[in-house]
Amino acid sequence: VLTPEELERLRVVLVRSRNPLNIGAAARALSNFGCLRLRVVHPYPVAFREARSAVDAEPVLSAAEDFDRVAPAIADCVLVVGTTAGTRRVPEAPLCRLEAGAELIRAYLRSGSRVALLFGSEKVGLSNQDLSHCQLLLRIPTRTKHPSMNLGQAVAVVLYELIRESPAEAAVPAETVQPLATAAERERLIALLLEGLSVNGFAHGVSHTRMEEKLRRLVRHLTLTPSDVSEWLGLLRQLLGKLRIAKALHRKP
Amino acid sequence: VLTPEELERLRVVLVRSRNPLNIGAAARALSNFGCLRLRVVHPYPVAFREARSAVDAEPVLSAAEDFDRVAPAIADCVLVVGTTAGTRRVPEAPLCRLEAGAELIRAYLRSGSRVALLFGSEKVGLSNQDLSHCQLLLRIPTRTKHPSMNLGQAVAVVLYELIRESPAEAAVPAETVQPLATAAERERLIALLLEGLSVNGFAHGVSHTRMEEKLRRLVRHLTLTPSDVSEWLGLLRQLLGKLRIAKALHRKP
Repeated sequence: VLTPEELERLRVVLVRSRNPLNIGAAARALSNFGCLRLRVVHPYPVAFREARSAVDAEPVLSAAEDFDRVAPAIADCVLVVGTTAGTRRVPEAPLCRLEAGAELIRAYLRSGSRVALLFGSEKVGLSNQDLSHCQLLLRIPTRTKHPSMNLGQAVAVVLYELIRESPAEAAVPAETVQPLATAAERERLIALLLEGLSVNGFAHGVSHTRMEEKLRRLVRHLTLTPSDVSEWLGLLRQLLGKLRIAKALHRKP
Repeated sequence: VLTPEELERLRVVLVRSRNPLNIGAAARALSNFGCLRLRVVHPYPVAFREARSAVDAEPVLSAAEDFDRVAPAIADCVLVVGTTAGTRRVPEAPLCRLEAGAELIRAYLRSGSRVALLFGSEKVGLSNQDLSHCQLLLRIPTRTKHPSMNLGQAVAVVLYELIRESPAEAAVPAETVQPLATAAERERLIALLLEGLSVNGFAHGVSHTRMEEKLRRLVRHLTLTPSDVSEWLGLLRQLLGKLRIAKALHRKP
């Protein structure tokens, strides 16, 4: 886990972003994950101005630094990392999957170094000139058939990978997962319970909706296999049958 | 790692999405990460129609299934998982961080079960009624100060966590990371080399830009510490001084 001081050493650099919605979305992701240092290189001025009004990201956007070239935007950084869909490379800059690259970035941030993380424009990504500044290229593991991500989503995914923790709980092996009933099977049980309980109205004047939510909560809490459900359904149908007969008899005289 | 067959068991369910851009962005994330089964519950009809033209996500959007309530949208699923910023809960549905929850979801998908992953509307998220269907709640580990994510970004982050791999390379311990020169220090070296090499023009008629990129690549490839850089700068300044004197002498006669 990175401390706020370590995260503070990260600079997210958006190069030639064209869409104010994307700049705003990127800024929101920075804010969500506690990486508060945004830099923009040569954005469309109008895009940058409009992004400044993006929801919930004002502090990040108003503190954003504006540069006209890549070199000054990364000047104070020791490690310069580019992002790519993997279709474009530069000689000698290793290309690695995000999961592995994030380990290296965290190590640099922990060691006290500043790291620049470059994202290219929506249409063409980072240019060869931009990439020539990079010591490492990151690839988000998208499908070969559809590698190119939306800018705001790419920023969110990379930052999430940087701040995520290894799950404290051990992995759940597949063989310990019980084959459970589907939601539809559970709903049949709930419907039957509701039907039974609604005969002559619910106790304490509880509404149908409240009772339904309560039953759903109770049923969800049970660890029901498909055969459990069919057994319970059978029992409930019997009870409901008895209830109807009793009601009919009561009405007769 | 999940196989395409295992991923095929996942249903991403967008509940009452209002913004066509967000529906489109969510569909794009599904396509990027190979989760191709989208369901929408009661979206604004116009939003859903407009989203159908979203870039690169046509196959996912045109195959999307449309429901008017949550229950039928999750009916064939064994595990129903809700997403929340953590500010709202339901009794008895455990709330866990995405990293841990993803382990469980993968285990269910591997065991052959279908899993529904619910995302609420942009403004208010999932309602209590929606949450009453969920057996597990996921929280993306955002900052307490700014927990609420953009819908498209939240979908991208959750799907990325599901498909990510443990880095094959071991973690790089911080102490093995050398304190390296900053990009600005490297640029000073490149500038000086360029200056020296440009005296009397570059060999083979190479352009200034090409030479700059070539030098940047070569310098980037060096593992330079700050003291390396200052030593190299000193040497280069000496060479450049000699070059200027030689040129001046040559011009004299």
